[in-house]
Amino acid sequence: MVAVNDSVNVALSLGEKMHALATKLFPICRSITGNGVRQTLDIIRREVPLQIHEVPSGTKVFDWEVPREWNINDAYIKNSNGEKIVDFKNCNLHVLNYSIPVHKKVNLEELKKHLYFLKDYPDWIPYRTSYYKEEWGFCITYNQFSQLKEDSYEVCIDSTLEAGNLTYGESFIPGMTSEEVLISTHVCHPSLANDNLSGIGVAVSLIKTLLAKKSRYSYRFVFIPGTIGSITWLACNENVIPRIKHGLVASLLGDNGAFTYKRSRRGDAEIDVIAEYVLKSRDGRNKIIDFFPYGYDERQYCSPGINLAVGNLSRTPFGQYIQYHTSADNLDFISPASLEDSYHTYLEIISVLDDNRKFINTNPNCEPQLGKRGLYNLQGGNNDAKDFQLALLWILNLSDGTSNLLDISKRANMKFESIRYAASKLEECGLLVQA
Amino acid sequence: MVAVNDSVNVALSLGEKMHALATKLFPICRSITGNGVRQTLDIIRREVPLQIHEVPSGTKVFDWEVPREWNINDAYIKNSNGEKIVDFKNCNLHVLNYSIPVHKKVNLEELKKHLYFLKDYPDWIPYRTSYYKEEWGFCITYNQFSQLKEDSYEVCIDSTLEAGNLTYGESFIPGMTSEEVLISTHVCHPSLANDNLSGIGVAVSLIKTLLAKKSRYSYRFVFIPGTIGSITWLACNENVIPRIKHGLVASLLGDNGAFTYKRSRRGDAEIDVIAEYVLKSRDGRNKIIDFFPYGYDERQYCSPGINLAVGNLSRTPFGQYIQYHTSADNLDFISPASLEDSYHTYLEIISVLDDNRKFINTNPNCEPQLGKRGLYNLQGGNNDAKDFQLALLWILNLSDGTSNLLDISKRANMKFESIRYAASKLEECGLLVQA
Amino acid sequence: MVAVNDSVNVALSLGEKMHALATKLFPICRSITGNGVRQTLDIIRREVPLQIHEVPSGTKVFDWEVPREWNINDAYIKNSNGEKIVDFKNCNLHVLNYSIPVHKKVNLEELKKHLYFLKDYPDWIPYRTSYYKEEWGFCITYNQFSQLKEDSYEVCIDSTLEAGNLTYGESFIPGMTSEEVLISTHVCHPSLANDNLSGIGVAVSLIKTLLAKKSRYSYRFVFIPGTIGSITWLACNENVIPRIKHGLVASLLGDNGAFTYKRSRRGDAEIDVIAEYVLKSRDGRNKIIDFFPYGYDERQYCSPGINLAVGNLSRTPFGQYIQYHTSADNLDFISPASLEDSYHTYLEIISVLDDNRKFINTNPNCEPQLGKRGLYNLQGGNNDAKDFQLALLWILNLSDGTSNLLDISKRANMKFESIRYAASKLEECGLLVQA
Repeated sequence: MVAVNDSVNVALSLGEKMHALATKLFPICRSITGNGVRQTLDIIRREVPLQIHEVPSGTKVFDWEVPREWNINDAYIKNSNGEKIVDFKNCNLHVLNYSIPVHKKVNLEELKKHLYFLKDYPDWIPYRTSYYKEEWGFCITYNQFSQLKEDSYEVCIDSTLEAGNLTYGESFIPGMTSEEVLISTHVCHPSLANDNLSGIGVAVSLIKTLLAKKSRYSYRFVFIPGTIGSITWLACNENVIPRIKHGLVASLLGDNGAFTYKRSRRGDAEIDVIAEYVLKSRDGRNKIIDFFPYGYDERQYCSPGINLAVGNLSRTPFGQYIQYHTSADNLDFISPASLEDSYHTYLEIISVLDDNRKFINTNPNCEPQLGKRGLYNLQGGNNDAKDFQLALLWILNLSDGTSNLLDISKRANMKFESIRYAASKLEECGLLVQA
Repeated sequence: MVAVNDSVNVALSLGEKMHALATKLFPICRSITGNGVRQTLDIIRREVPLQIHEVPSGTKVFDWEVPREWNINDAYIKNSNGEKIVDFKNCNLHVLNYSIPVHKKVNLEELKKHLYFLKDYPDWIPYRTSYYKEEWGFCITYNQFSQLKEDSYEVCIDSTLEAGNLTYGESFIPGMTSEEVLISTHVCHPSLANDNLSGIGVAVSLIKTLLAKKSRYSYRFVFIPGTIGSITWLACNENVIPRIKHGLVASLLGDNGAFTYKRSRRGDAEIDVIAEYVLKSRDGRNKIIDFFPYGYDERQYCSPGINLAVGNLSRTPFGQYIQYHTSADNLDFISPASLEDSYHTYLEIISVLDDNRKFINTNPNCEPQLGKRGLYNLQGGNNDAKDFQLALLWILNLSDGTSNLLDISKRANMKFESIRYAASKLEECGLLVQA
Repeated sequence: MVAVNDSVNVALSLGEKMHALATKLFPICRSITGNGVRQTLDIIRREVPLQIHEVPSGTKVFDWEVPREWNINDAYIKNSNGEKIVDFKNCNLHVLNYSIPVHKKVNLEELKKHLYFLKDYPDWIPYRTSYYKEEWGFCITYNQFSQLKEDSYEVCIDSTLEAGNLTYGESFIPGMTSEEVLISTHVCHPSLANDNLSGIGVAVSLIKTLLAKKSRYSYRFVFIPGTIGSITWLACNENVIPRIKHGLVASLLGDNGAFTYKRSRRGDAEIDVIAEYVLKSRDGRNKIIDFFPYGYDERQYCSPGINLAVGNLSRTPFGQYIQYHTSADNLDFISPASLEDSYHTYLEIISVLDDNRKFINTNPNCEPQLGKRGLYNLQGGNNDAKDFQLALLWILNLSDGTSNLLDISKRANMKFESIRYAASKLEECGLLVQA
């Protein structure tokens, strides 16, 4: 376990810092609206610049409207002896998320209609929601459930569901151009660690890194509730959409599985090609799958009228690990090492994306004389020099404005890094200009 | 064997009815012109509405002209004892089809120049024609041939070859649009059952079915002599050609082999995609082959200046069964079960074709809220409901006017039927309109 | 070994004649400029018409300029006893090609800085050049090198490097159209047989053959020094470039390896398709590889601003045989049989290229009536007739102006030769016209 306090402990590794942030955010009872999201964004704002937006209940957002705001103070089930047998204060998963308020006595039969449990995992509490159907309920372990006897139970959910706001956060890092890369992560899950605190941690670390460097693209990170949050964000930012050239939905980044990249709806967008290149070069077990209209907020970003080049990059995909949407998706389930590896994977994709320019060979008729520019290895020599030479020739040959550097690296069967370096040398001596 | 009479026996299965029609048509001596075709079309007209056309001999039809009309009353070979050793009245295959009239005495040597037989199948009579070279001849079994002795033979072919007409039939079933589907079957073979009575039977049954339902497309069935018939039909119907969007040449549909679909010249026409989808989903043994400029009337429909999206769907292809073009292609060679299965295969292709619309998602920005339209399965639940849900999402996601329902079903890896059903539900509540 | 003299020995096979020409050219000390090239072109001019061009030193050719002209009279290393231990007169490879003049005494240490040898092949002299860095040097066997003792050595390179010309030759064979096919071979290597005398020999034989026949294309053969020669030729012939529709760089054609065709930068040019078709049909061991920006003069022809449809056709590619760029690439390394086979391979490619026309079916609506034109095999009959018939139908069906004869032969799975023959018959009777 990682020790956490508000002052940054400089001795922590990057992965440990991400895990520490997750630990701080873990106890908060988040939902798609309400104070849980606000508290979460406040903590993120202590780490990185963040603009917080409030969108009033009832606002029309495309085919939907922003729902009433949900908040909760307490919830419990007491038996007839007045003993709390289920207590929200122990674990916020105990309450069906978005439960309407209730306070009454019920018999066992009535109570059971409002209970959710997992028979196959008798120690785990499931995570359940009812955003759009008015309902109250409790999620408990199967062990708790099986001990329930005929009795008169006091059920209390001290929640409010009232006109308010949907809250989301945005961190924008201007680049050399107004073209944007969108990184979207959801912030609506209560005490679940991989889904969604791992995504928040990786996003925060990436913001810190990108703030410290000069990038071609502007980067926009959004921290939003799932589904209704991305719908709201898109509806409120229709002017921004045309500037978004690439994007990733970040989630499920702390478990120890290999990565799965789910392509954008376009399927052959530059982000799709780059994510595949980076994932395959980092680890052969990483997987690439085609878009399907189910999952996280890529569903909205990739709806036919929006159709952004946004993929989803997670480790083990949703629903494919048994702890998914249960109390077992806790702080032990995510590791500093996995979080840090996820950060580096995202950063490599961003780095390739940012440098994946197209160039024009300024001297396209025959080869330029590299020797007179000091780029020709007159001595013959070692393999690095030969590879550098070949990289120069490939770039010159293919830089007619149709191929980007990753295209060239694939065609040449050379690493992107080698092609990027050689291109920088050719640009320096004026043999390349940006297309 | 199936009992046949003119009044329809309602106890017959559909396959038996098709076999009964074939049985009725079997004895007629058809050719590319003449009364055999007329009698055949008259019998078809008793079953379904049919317009009969007569095109005069000498009419220019593209590079060809309609030939003289051929009719035959009788034909025989008598030995010097006056015994008929070969008799047209026993089997109309005995006469070389389109033989010029002849009545004379010949010796064995001369006779042999005009005899056709199959040494490998000594009991079978071959089917031979000589439409464009003036010739007379007899087709006999090898057993008959081998018993011929030196003798003086009387050969008589009481045929006429005179200015007349080429006859064809057409059945047109108007649909909701003027776009047409063409089903073409040839009617020029004499006593051969699979080639061509099976095609006639399936076509007649399809007409009856289509008359009873409302279709998007108009359907045009043509009953024509092979080659010169389709050339004549195309030459006489140049105004119709642009309306034909899809088509199939129907023949060889009564044997017990798997289906072979031969693609149109275009190769990727919608009919090609749909025929492949239906055949593969019905039976893994069904085969798909590319177009080649040889075979039945698809040769004309797929000539470069016409280039219609017309494929050929048969069971065992021509020339690939030993009974092909012999007296063994008889009524026992075709079965009610195969005919009925052929009918259902054609009907499924027609059904997918007719319903394979493209839609536009009227709410393309983000997902529409299915819940408020009663399309969201709030309870979670069984697999059918989950599949229905996923079908809705796939259709909404891909309905931008570029994908038809079959495209979507393939992309979603779901049955066309499931996608069609879900699309109808989305159309009902206004989330889809036809593209 | 082949006997050689100036009068042509008519008893020699074509391969022997090519080998004899190589033998005559072998002793000449060629480089990228100078009298060696002139003597080479003079000998070629005795065989075929050849226009010789001189381009002055200092001429700007794209990013380069024509270098000073290099000539050499003699070179040697003498030991302190006055013995010539290395003698240019024994083998012109002994001198670092383009060495500046030098005449001085050096000790062993200094001498070694200017020596090149091959430790792995102690009997072979390497071939080295220093065109663009002022340098002097000797190439010797490792056996020579290892006998060197501490001594005072007299090194003498009696060369000149002065303003002069770059020399190249051109042979142009006008065809029926002004569209050109370029065959380029380099003439800058001294006593090396496969690289480059084999290419010269094949080119000369092809010129003789093409002069004797009527071709669709005009053929342009260029005999140029590598790299700077093709750059100079392109710079001096910018008006010719648009007329060049296809081309091949010819070299390494005398060894006994299978062929390797390296595609043009375009990758799917007609020459790429035809070279692949011919090579695969001639010998399954022949290989096809994609373009890469390294190798021979295709580097220049395929630079992005030029981008000609020029591939490279050699036997064993450069650098893939151990004798490459050593004294072991001698007249024994190339054989008359390989040279002759190379000639026939080139000629077949040229023949397919020249005849690979596109036609228009003048009778595109339905099939034309072949019978009335004597093209229909009325008797049925043998397989050749059937294949001819099928070839006619394929050509008629696909001749809508989009497919050339090789496309048709592949689609029909028939030999190009059969399709070409059938097309000629259809053209004769007016059913085809050139597209």
